[in-house]
Amino acid sequence: MNIIDDAIIQKYLDEAVKVSRANDAGEVAKYIPELSLQDPRQTAAIIRTTNNKIYSSGDSLHDDFTLQSSAKLVVLIGLLEEFGSEEVYKWVMVEPSGHDFNSVARLDQFGPYPSNPMLNAGAITLCSKIPGNDEDKMHWLDVWIEKLFNEKARLNTKVFASERRTGDRNRALAYLLRSNNMLEGDVERILEIYFTLCSFEMSPYQAAHLPYLLANKGKNTSGEQIISENTVKQSISIMATCGLYNESGKHLVNTGMPAKSSVSGYIFAVVPGIAGIVTFSPRVNAKGSSVRGSIILRELSNKLNWHFALN
Amino acid sequence: MNIIDDAIIQKYLDEAVKVSRANDAGEVAKYIPELSLQDPRQTAAIIRTTNNKIYSSGDSLHDDFTLQSSAKLVVLIGLLEEFGSEEVYKWVMVEPSGHDFNSVARLDQFGPYPSNPMLNAGAITLCSKIPGNDEDKMHWLDVWIEKLFNEKARLNTKVFASERRTGDRNRALAYLLRSNNMLEGDVERILEIYFTLCSFEMSPYQAAHLPYLLANKGKNTSGEQIISENTVKQSISIMATCGLYNESGKHLVNTGMPAKSSVSGYIFAVVPGIAGIVTFSPRVNAKGSSVRGSIILRELSNKLNWHFALN
Amino acid sequence: MNIIDDAIIQKYLDEAVKVSRANDAGEVAKYIPELSLQDPRQTAAIIRTTNNKIYSSGDSLHDDFTLQSSAKLVVLIGLLEEFGSEEVYKWVMVEPSGHDFNSVARLDQFGPYPSNPMLNAGAITLCSKIPGNDEDKMHWLDVWIEKLFNEKARLNTKVFASERRTGDRNRALAYLLRSNNMLEGDVERILEIYFTLCSFEMSPYQAAHLPYLLANKGKNTSGEQIISENTVKQSISIMATCGLYNESGKHLVNTGMPAKSSVSGYIFAVVPGIAGIVTFSPRVNAKGSSVRGSIILRELSNKLNWHFALN
Amino acid sequence: MNIIDDAIIQKYLDEAVKVSRANDAGEVAKYIPELSLQDPRQTAAIIRTTNNKIYSSGDSLHDDFTLQSSAKLVVLIGLLEEFGSEEVYKWVMVEPSGHDFNSVARLDQFGPYPSNPMLNAGAITLCSKIPGNDEDKMHWLDVWIEKLFNEKARLNTKVFASERRTGDRNRALAYLLRSNNMLEGDVERILEIYFTLCSFEMSPYQAAHLPYLLANKGKNTSGEQIISENTVKQSISIMATCGLYNESGKHLVNTGMPAKSSVSGYIFAVVPGIAGIVTFSPRVNAKGSSVRGSIILRELSNKLNWHFALN
Repeated sequence: MNIIDDAIIQKYLDEAVKVSRANDAGEVAKYIPELSLQDPRQTAAIIRTTNNKIYSSGDSLHDDFTLQSSAKLVVLIGLLEEFGSEEVYKWVMVEPSGHDFNSVARLDQFGPYPSNPMLNAGAITLCSKIPGNDEDKMHWLDVWIEKLFNEKARLNTKVFASERRTGDRNRALAYLLRSNNMLEGDVERILEIYFTLCSFEMSPYQAAHLPYLLANKGKNTSGEQIISENTVKQSISIMATCGLYNESGKHLVNTGMPAKSSVSGYIFAVVPGIAGIVTFSPRVNAKGSSVRGSIILRELSNKLNWHFALN
Repeated sequence: MNIIDDAIIQKYLDEAVKVSRANDAGEVAKYIPELSLQDPRQTAAIIRTTNNKIYSSGDSLHDDFTLQSSAKLVVLIGLLEEFGSEEVYKWVMVEPSGHDFNSVARLDQFGPYPSNPMLNAGAITLCSKIPGNDEDKMHWLDVWIEKLFNEKARLNTKVFASERRTGDRNRALAYLLRSNNMLEGDVERILEIYFTLCSFEMSPYQAAHLPYLLANKGKNTSGEQIISENTVKQSISIMATCGLYNESGKHLVNTGMPAKSSVSGYIFAVVPGIAGIVTFSPRVNAKGSSVRGSIILRELSNKLNWHFALN
Repeated sequence: MNIIDDAIIQKYLDEAVKVSRANDAGEVAKYIPELSLQDPRQTAAIIRTTNNKIYSSGDSLHDDFTLQSSAKLVVLIGLLEEFGSEEVYKWVMVEPSGHDFNSVARLDQFGPYPSNPMLNAGAITLCSKIPGNDEDKMHWLDVWIEKLFNEKARLNTKVFASERRTGDRNRALAYLLRSNNMLEGDVERILEIYFTLCSFEMSPYQAAHLPYLLANKGKNTSGEQIISENTVKQSISIMATCGLYNESGKHLVNTGMPAKSSVSGYIFAVVPGIAGIVTFSPRVNAKGSSVRGSIILRELSNKLNWHFALN
Repeated sequence: MNIIDDAIIQKYLDEAVKVSRANDAGEVAKYIPELSLQDPRQTAAIIRTTNNKIYSSGDSLHDDFTLQSSAKLVVLIGLLEEFGSEEVYKWVMVEPSGHDFNSVARLDQFGPYPSNPMLNAGAITLCSKIPGNDEDKMHWLDVWIEKLFNEKARLNTKVFASERRTGDRNRALAYLLRSNNMLEGDVERILEIYFTLCSFEMSPYQAAHLPYLLANKGKNTSGEQIISENTVKQSISIMATCGLYNESGKHLVNTGMPAKSSVSGYIFAVVPGIAGIVTFSPRVNAKGSSVRGSIILRELSNKLNWHFALN
């Protein structure tokens, strides 16, 4: 697998975005009311290669969108860096669950441990493990957002309010975790951390820094090691098996790019050693993944032969 | 990720086998009586690199063991080659299931489609799709075994008899599939194909040809394209998410090597672009994966930095 | 609760049948092809009181219909009589399952024991416990059919053939049972006993003898004790909690009459101490219970105050 | 079934209590810390017949114990009386669930409606339907407790505090219900009503008034109709199929007495037309039912032939 010349990448990226725009399937997520206001037509894609080129296509490249589930990577990466994988895997497992992202039945039947950190139950558990008091935890999020995106954290307070108001399924998960001694502390306050995490916003252009870091073995554009190789391995592996919930298998077959989806419409994808990719388009399918984003990644994989199995 | 020099690979391989031998966890699989006779001490590992080197360590390198679930790759690859992935994915899904390899509850609750071709339900379905009459199907298996292992197919008739005699859970899966119109034909005869597939035997040394082919983008040592790049992509992706059933996630995190486990004690693993690896050791854990094999792969991944995410 | 005078019972029975005929919901069961040929308009009801009166209303009172699941009572009663409840409850549990009548997931997740003898898994298990060889078992069925219905057993061979041809879900249950050592012997031959049991036919008029016996504490019209009081207690209790599968609760609330439904359209109901009732109408709902039959029983319960709780 | 003479009932009751005392199986419920302090040796039983006799045996007949789940009958009966069964069954179903009493998986997989009002999810839902503001609801509970037990409501504040502190699984149920629009209002405040309901205390002697009322078709000792016959029918039917959670089937087979169990150690049982029975003994089995209480009821049923099927 090689980095192909600039013109070809740009051409295939433009084509991929165009192909995706022909597809109007999926719907803007409605279960968080504030998200339902998003413009379904928006479609953007950014590629940041490990040789420091940036390619972009589509509209809304510099508009802000909340990270939602793609931010689960932030807490996972931060805790892996600070506590090590052995400790983190005492809190959550790393198995694809075969159930929906917010399944309470999964947790009750197969628990008490959350199946993986990409599920709501797993991410809530990890939020509870951020060290310190509430202010420390909020500061921790700011620090890690900035480290991974190279941008200050910005909270979308309307989305935050909407998440909190409608987050009963997450409350059910959190209380079930606590009833099994998997979670300590005040549930409502742990969830505030979780809802905050989900409600940070970035533009697609800015967001691409995180998958770029992962593709570049943890180093930033100056070659500085921002996150360790071990954390990179752990994170990309978890994205490969769990990043798109119960269509992770289909996604990996189609693209060979470990990725993390989000109901806001983001997909963060990694071509190890080659490129980080961010797509944004808010129409999501029943599994909570962006329809157009999936198409763009599949097109790029096929055209550029960017598939981890063809390394 | 680079192919490192010979002496280093051999040294780490020997060390990995030695480390694994210190671990006596797991038990020889008992649910197929004939398998329970295996010697629990046997431990072998082979690496075939894409630059045509072969490294081996341990005992029983040239003893024959039945392929069991690792043979599911044979029928998957053969059908992908002959029918294409679009057609094959009309028969089975490619999602990790989050349940045990032979779960009937999974199929009943989340079906009617088998979750993936690495589960018994999926592999039985694929066996039913091999074209022709019973003799044709048996011939098809011979042809594909020889193509992928570069060895004639040899059936262990005692294991075959043992599988057939004790295969009631597979019968339950097959009849449930047929009740949902997911399977056509005589169940007992379809299962004979499936039990035959599982009962082919190879030595670890011979078996390494298949993961080597996958690591080498489908080409054999002469550079001949034995299987297409698309089939390679599909197969390795499915191994990454589904190859070790409900510990596929943990395995990928630990090793970064897509793999297929088997209750006989085989694990077939792929380091894309670099090497195919086979480990054999018959003590398996509760999920049906070889304990020592998993340790060998983890050691190799760590020492040689062979992890797909660090491409 | 008292037996009211003849004219009133007949009047309410006629009214109940009339009310039920206004309802065209439900469909003739289609999963056994031969059953799908039944005339959806047929509606019959018989009451046999413990003071030896017989009331009937509707059409097809003397037409033959296969017993299907209502025959599960025959094997349960026969084995309770011959082996005692302690022994029988070593083979099956007596808990309502909360799942569909033919759920394989239930058995796999909550097994290895079948939840109760009114489910297919439970009845198949009981069929395997009928003593003797195949001929003995067939003879046993003849004997018990005649004992409980006071009529010779008559097999509908077309329905039998249809059941056997399409019984794959039952095969899945049986093989799953056998894989857990809950069933011994040749599955196909055990199922022939089960399919035979389901395919005996009786007219509604004749069928009413069985619920009458149960209502009459096991005695026939001559006062002879045909089945023991203990068997009567066991059978009626199981009908109360499990007889209509996952709408047993709703049925008992609506009627207070322990009953056993059947996809052919039969419902056998018991008003302890008062009357046995049989309804027949082949339109069944999603749970496999006759829609009109349920209405008739509810009407009778309300009008005659025949509800076990108002004893 | 007849009411037998006084001396015989007292004799069998004494014998039943004695037999039960030989059994030390089960443990005092520990998941509510305050309950774990109960004396495991306490054993009491009261029979109140519909001809106005009271029989008692054992110790602690006049000690106070919290009602726990047996109080679910109070809210069910009160709402049935005030709203009618049609309305109440829009809020909860009446099916035995086949799962544990506090299963979240059941609600998530088979919901959104709670399976029945004897499960925690169902009772919490019903508590939310008590009319008025929080003070009105508390008053409503006082009124209905007094109506059904003929005693003023007394709250055990320590148990209440213990329930509230450790009630996370109930919180998980409540938030899951609200996420599915099955529950309205502030969850914590609804749960305060529910925890209050569970924490009312009565002596066994006093408690027997409620099952007596049900056995007596809703009339008190003066013949006054306290609750309607329809409510009696509904309540006893629900007790028959759902009152002991996932051992309701076994209980009905063993005793023929519809009943409601409670982790505090109470069982309320009804012999329709004959008697209400209360047993108390705090050692409960894995399903949350009193071990000795079950033995006492089984003994009484066998000796006195008090089984609904032998009416």
